[in-house]
Amino acid sequence: MTTSLTDLSHDDLSALHQQLSSEHAKLAASGVCLNITRGKPSPDQLDLNADLLTIDVPSHAEDGQDVRNYGGNRGLPEIRRIFGELLGVDVDHIIAADNSSLSIMHDLAMFAVVYGIAGQQPWFGRNVKFIAPVPGYDRHFSICEHLGIDMIPVELGEHGPDVDEVAKLASDPSVKGMWVVPMYANPNGVVYDEQTVRALVSMPAAPDFRIWWDNAYTLHHLTDTERPALPVLQWAEEAGNPDRVFELASTSKITFAGDGVSFLASSKANLDWYLEHAAVRSIGPDKVNQLRHAQYLRDADGVRNLMRAHREILAPKFAVVDEILTRRLGGRGVATWTHPTGGYFITLDVMDGTASRVVALAKEAGIALTPAGASHPLHHDPHDRTIRLAPSFPSLDELRDAMEGVSTCVLLAASEKLLQG
Amino acid sequence: MTTSLTDLSHDDLSALHQQLSSEHAKLAASGVCLNITRGKPSPDQLDLNADLLTIDVPSHAEDGQDVRNYGGNRGLPEIRRIFGELLGVDVDHIIAADNSSLSIMHDLAMFAVVYGIAGQQPWFGRNVKFIAPVPGYDRHFSICEHLGIDMIPVELGEHGPDVDEVAKLASDPSVKGMWVVPMYANPNGVVYDEQTVRALVSMPAAPDFRIWWDNAYTLHHLTDTERPALPVLQWAEEAGNPDRVFELASTSKITFAGDGVSFLASSKANLDWYLEHAAVRSIGPDKVNQLRHAQYLRDADGVRNLMRAHREILAPKFAVVDEILTRRLGGRGVATWTHPTGGYFITLDVMDGTASRVVALAKEAGIALTPAGASHPLHHDPHDRTIRLAPSFPSLDELRDAMEGVSTCVLLAASEKLLQG
Repeated sequence: MTTSLTDLSHDDLSALHQQLSSEHAKLAASGVCLNITRGKPSPDQLDLNADLLTIDVPSHAEDGQDVRNYGGNRGLPEIRRIFGELLGVDVDHIIAADNSSLSIMHDLAMFAVVYGIAGQQPWFGRNVKFIAPVPGYDRHFSICEHLGIDMIPVELGEHGPDVDEVAKLASDPSVKGMWVVPMYANPNGVVYDEQTVRALVSMPAAPDFRIWWDNAYTLHHLTDTERPALPVLQWAEEAGNPDRVFELASTSKITFAGDGVSFLASSKANLDWYLEHAAVRSIGPDKVNQLRHAQYLRDADGVRNLMRAHREILAPKFAVVDEILTRRLGGRGVATWTHPTGGYFITLDVMDGTASRVVALAKEAGIALTPAGASHPLHHDPHDRTIRLAPSFPSLDELRDAMEGVSTCVLLAASEKLLQG
Repeated sequence: MTTSLTDLSHDDLSALHQQLSSEHAKLAASGVCLNITRGKPSPDQLDLNADLLTIDVPSHAEDGQDVRNYGGNRGLPEIRRIFGELLGVDVDHIIAADNSSLSIMHDLAMFAVVYGIAGQQPWFGRNVKFIAPVPGYDRHFSICEHLGIDMIPVELGEHGPDVDEVAKLASDPSVKGMWVVPMYANPNGVVYDEQTVRALVSMPAAPDFRIWWDNAYTLHHLTDTERPALPVLQWAEEAGNPDRVFELASTSKITFAGDGVSFLASSKANLDWYLEHAAVRSIGPDKVNQLRHAQYLRDADGVRNLMRAHREILAPKFAVVDEILTRRLGGRGVATWTHPTGGYFITLDVMDGTASRVVALAKEAGIALTPAGASHPLHHDPHDRTIRLAPSFPSLDELRDAMEGVSTCVLLAASEKLLQG
């Protein structure tokens, strides 16, 4: 039966609704407990890096630094070189920090709020706005929300947001930043194209306007098309805006999510500014762990091979989600979803006005979904339609059960809505 | 010859000056390069923890958490329990973070500036002051200086600062904090006594006044008198000011300076406030390293034994400094110095108005000393007399050479000064 729900007669819709309600009740009674909320690596993926828990680490880095002692606030050259190569960034323009690029982004924002960027006024107490492509990453939006930075949502198209719309927004001097997940965006898998990025780094903007370029998934291909990282720093320099971009990356979804190395790549002026303030915070990053990672990963190809092993585990999970959504929801006129070629998420757009209901129904059925609205600034999805699916953590069997359940909830919520309408 | 320089005739002083100048010139020509600026553990001390570079770490903590994955922003119970016991703090009142308690202090200050403490106004743009016992720790003072927080110096007496003077200062509602290194204070080794601490936690102060209690050296005894940590949180609670204290500690000078675990101990309200803001910064600390430390240290006695091994290395260095200063400067009327029973520093007070000159002369002689004034707010020592000596890093032989050189510089600067006078 692949009739669109909107084409069903009232009686047929009522019958379907009853059948779905009964399926849902069974699920709720079954006591399952499934969680597809967060982009966490699965135990299988973490096991790929078992050697990181046992590898011996030398006491000194290649430049003679004693990694056990204080100091070295740019991080070790050997780990910066590996990720510089992967991101297409010169080793002098990338620094290595502790286990979270989110922390670097947070600190950059705090420094901007308290000290100001590039000699401009601190943002504290001022009307500051960020451009927020939607759907987007909830933890980016949380930093803005927590700091009282307004967010202006713009729709993410197939190759990034509409650059004319963005350029118009950026011409407002109170617009100070823009969140970008350039490859395999969280959550809809969009890959920014060169034309879009060149426009973003060229457009006029405030002197302290920065693109917060989060390479969270740049190395995380789901197919054998391994796109290179976009050379955004180079393009920004070519456009005459060398300080336009804060580029972030980490090993969180490469090695261990909670015990990796993070990176900030940017112009000399931006790195100097960051380090000036970061030096008050810390006498240096965890160099032992940086050296452990450099020894374990060996080189850029070591990372590439590891990412292929992750793909072997992840790609079948994305296939299962697509297979079940296609079988259960295909042709029913109540949902569309993305077919990402990389990253950690699938975006499921359900019938307008039903996303919250789907999440609530799923919860009753023992399936935890990311809260509806999480992909939008201030948790507000104006259409109440976007749901982020995170297939990485559950096993294939759990994922199958979860997606069957979610499909039931999507259909049930839609039929409820249509019967009310 | 142990005549005080002030008792010498002009001719004798001139002769001495000439002799010291010649000694100094020889040192300067010898090309030595010695550094006693920072309280860094020596390679010998770091070697005590060689097993930390090779120990295998389990993938799961005692509570079943996968330490490799995201989450767990309070840190692992097993490491919090060990340091809770050492600090006399219940495990529910201590959280474990990454490699630097300086970072926790910095973030606490940033959160206070941007968000405010305990529902009070953010400190940004307001006249905020900290009480700064002097001499003190330059990195504490740097946080205040960088954030534009004024510092009010108060003299550190033998058991802490004068509590009446502090209480009077704290009655000003714009006074929001006080730096305390309660045991073996940096740099003069003072140990706060119970009476002083009870007065500090009892005195009236602003609702967002906090004592920033930095246990950097609390476990770092130089004699076999191993004083227990002062139960400051308990005394604050008994005084009816349970939120008075932010208590910090770390393993930086226990295991590896750059790769340890840091701790924040405080009231539930303070920890909740910190974690609310820290959660926007990070999805969790490096739990793998926390578990590595817990497995390696085993328990509180493991730490105590390790600290005894550190003492075996450190105590002879402190003895050498004292021996040379006594032999070279004893009875000369130009310097006094501390005889600490713990910590990492000796404070050398030279003739008023000569500390900068001693540091400059030492530099010419190839000996790097902590800049004069570093132990005072804004790098300003009003008497220009305090020099911080850090004996931990150099070898015994290097330290002997350095202290002979420093002694020459102290005498030379004093004789210059007296001849001018």
